[in-house]
Amino acid sequence: MDTYAGKKVLITGGLGFIGSNLAIRLVELGAEVTLVDSMIPSHGGNLFNIEPVRGRVSVNISDVRDSHGLEYLVRDQDFIFNLAGQVSHIESMADPMTDLEINSKSQLSLLEAVRHQNPDVRIVFTGTRQVYGKPEYLPVDEKHPVSFTDVNGVNNFAGESFHRLYFDVYGIRACVLRLTNTYGPRQLIRHSRQGFIAWFIRNILDGTKIQVFGDGTQVRDLNYVDDVVEALLRVGRDDRCWGQVFNLGAPEHVSLWDLAHLMIEVSGIRVLIEKVPFPPEKKRIDIGDYYADYRKIREAVGWDARISIREGLRKTFDYYRAHKQHYLDD
Amino acid sequence: MDTYAGKKVLITGGLGFIGSNLAIRLVELGAEVTLVDSMIPSHGGNLFNIEPVRGRVSVNISDVRDSHGLEYLVRDQDFIFNLAGQVSHIESMADPMTDLEINSKSQLSLLEAVRHQNPDVRIVFTGTRQVYGKPEYLPVDEKHPVSFTDVNGVNNFAGESFHRLYFDVYGIRACVLRLTNTYGPRQLIRHSRQGFIAWFIRNILDGTKIQVFGDGTQVRDLNYVDDVVEALLRVGRDDRCWGQVFNLGAPEHVSLWDLAHLMIEVSGIRVLIEKVPFPPEKKRIDIGDYYADYRKIREAVGWDARISIREGLRKTFDYYRAHKQHYLDD
Repeated sequence: MDTYAGKKVLITGGLGFIGSNLAIRLVELGAEVTLVDSMIPSHGGNLFNIEPVRGRVSVNISDVRDSHGLEYLVRDQDFIFNLAGQVSHIESMADPMTDLEINSKSQLSLLEAVRHQNPDVRIVFTGTRQVYGKPEYLPVDEKHPVSFTDVNGVNNFAGESFHRLYFDVYGIRACVLRLTNTYGPRQLIRHSRQGFIAWFIRNILDGTKIQVFGDGTQVRDLNYVDDVVEALLRVGRDDRCWGQVFNLGAPEHVSLWDLAHLMIEVSGIRVLIEKVPFPPEKKRIDIGDYYADYRKIREAVGWDARISIREGLRKTFDYYRAHKQHYLDD
Repeated sequence: MDTYAGKKVLITGGLGFIGSNLAIRLVELGAEVTLVDSMIPSHGGNLFNIEPVRGRVSVNISDVRDSHGLEYLVRDQDFIFNLAGQVSHIESMADPMTDLEINSKSQLSLLEAVRHQNPDVRIVFTGTRQVYGKPEYLPVDEKHPVSFTDVNGVNNFAGESFHRLYFDVYGIRACVLRLTNTYGPRQLIRHSRQGFIAWFIRNILDGTKIQVFGDGTQVRDLNYVDDVVEALLRVGRDDRCWGQVFNLGAPEHVSLWDLAHLMIEVSGIRVLIEKVPFPPEKKRIDIGDYYADYRKIREAVGWDARISIREGLRKTFDYYRAHKQHYLDD
């Protein structure tokens, strides 16, 4: 990981969950890090996230929709980890235009800025397994057809497609990771719109019951955030990755029901788990079982998910127990 | 086709090539037609296109990017044929934001307008074979993976995906046709950025040489515009089509070289055909051979391409010979 020592690195969404964990790691590796974040209240930005590196990173509060700002910020960077996004599926249906502006249009303006201002930069973009919709087969590899259950999926796919296109056409060195469910320290747990794992954690911390939709047998793969950070760093330094898309995934698959039980066990906090029928707006975007085939990234850069669910949950609860007050209030 | 008699029909891009041919047919069928067109000079809108039905259709000059206008225009319509688009691949690379605004964002705002103002309307959207990129196999069916060679492909796929999504999630009755190379009367032939067929026709009308890129062996399928109009009308009236995507195609496949020769023969105008190397900006978006598997639409609504290339070219040259002056100057 010497690649990053002394290098200039821009992280969009840098005060968010994955961005801040990545920033901390990059500072440890000796990189000169700039974080761009819009601090939109319902999104994941939180200044406390970068407490361990406060004063050792530059923080630039701005929105990726601000194309003039972006045009300036991308100059002279060696790497861009492009993580800014509207990630809530529910919000993408309630306000589809904002989702389009952030997840599609801003990606195109970032790439145009790069093309004109800094064509030698390297970019890693975080996509999502949501682009596969309800899987036609398991495990889901990168050749699985795309299918969209919400506006967010359409726009996120456009965003990743622009990155791959700018490599194909202009040689801009960009690659895409399609993330699955990521969890760990620094995730937003104030509301339930950023995924069920964060919300289960919040329920346990509050001592309130966990609600599992349907019968709870839906299977998922989970990545602890440090493993995702490792994947981002590995593809970002490897010239064989440009223009490619890679699934992340994990060797363990777990049902929501079993995960809730494991969380309670690891946390040592006893709460009820309740099966409830899917609310209609959740049912229509439910994808059933999902887990990824991630052999492509394993073969390309030797990445694997190293941290077991049990260990990852332990670290996660340790973090939130120590810093709970920074994650509960607005 | 009694379905359309007395019905209110909105056509976006209605003064363009396919829109105007559709409008003329719909007037013949007794529909009450409103045409929306922005008359952007480099696009295909041309008031002469609707000469046969002048005074029998409503013309509304406005841009689909005008979301307030759209919100009003979609009210009380029974059908929307949503054909407005920026179709030039070269322009989509030169001005990617305009392409995104028209082909992606405006489609989402049309669907939002429909959802709020007129959820019972039926919508047919025209997509493009460009979303398949360079074919992995031939003939290309609807399950072929998408792959983008330009910004236009990404945005057009987003546009069609929004239509399918709004059916899946909200029950908005929308379907998608992926058009292949369409030709015939009323196509823009002023510049070369709307496809090679129109440009070959223009070359012949001008008596200038035809330039074929590469060795001219690239194979294509072609649809005469009346066949495309027929397909639009058939899917628009059929409840089994909603939420679906259908390829158009043709039983005849032809190389560019043979097509150029056939055009010269049919037109009776002798011009030279010259093989020239691909210009770099064309080469990188060249897709090699393409022809569609269109069994899905044939089986769903009994559509087929009825007009042979020879007959279609004859009608096309007859039209442009009679009305040339309306298509050559700005």
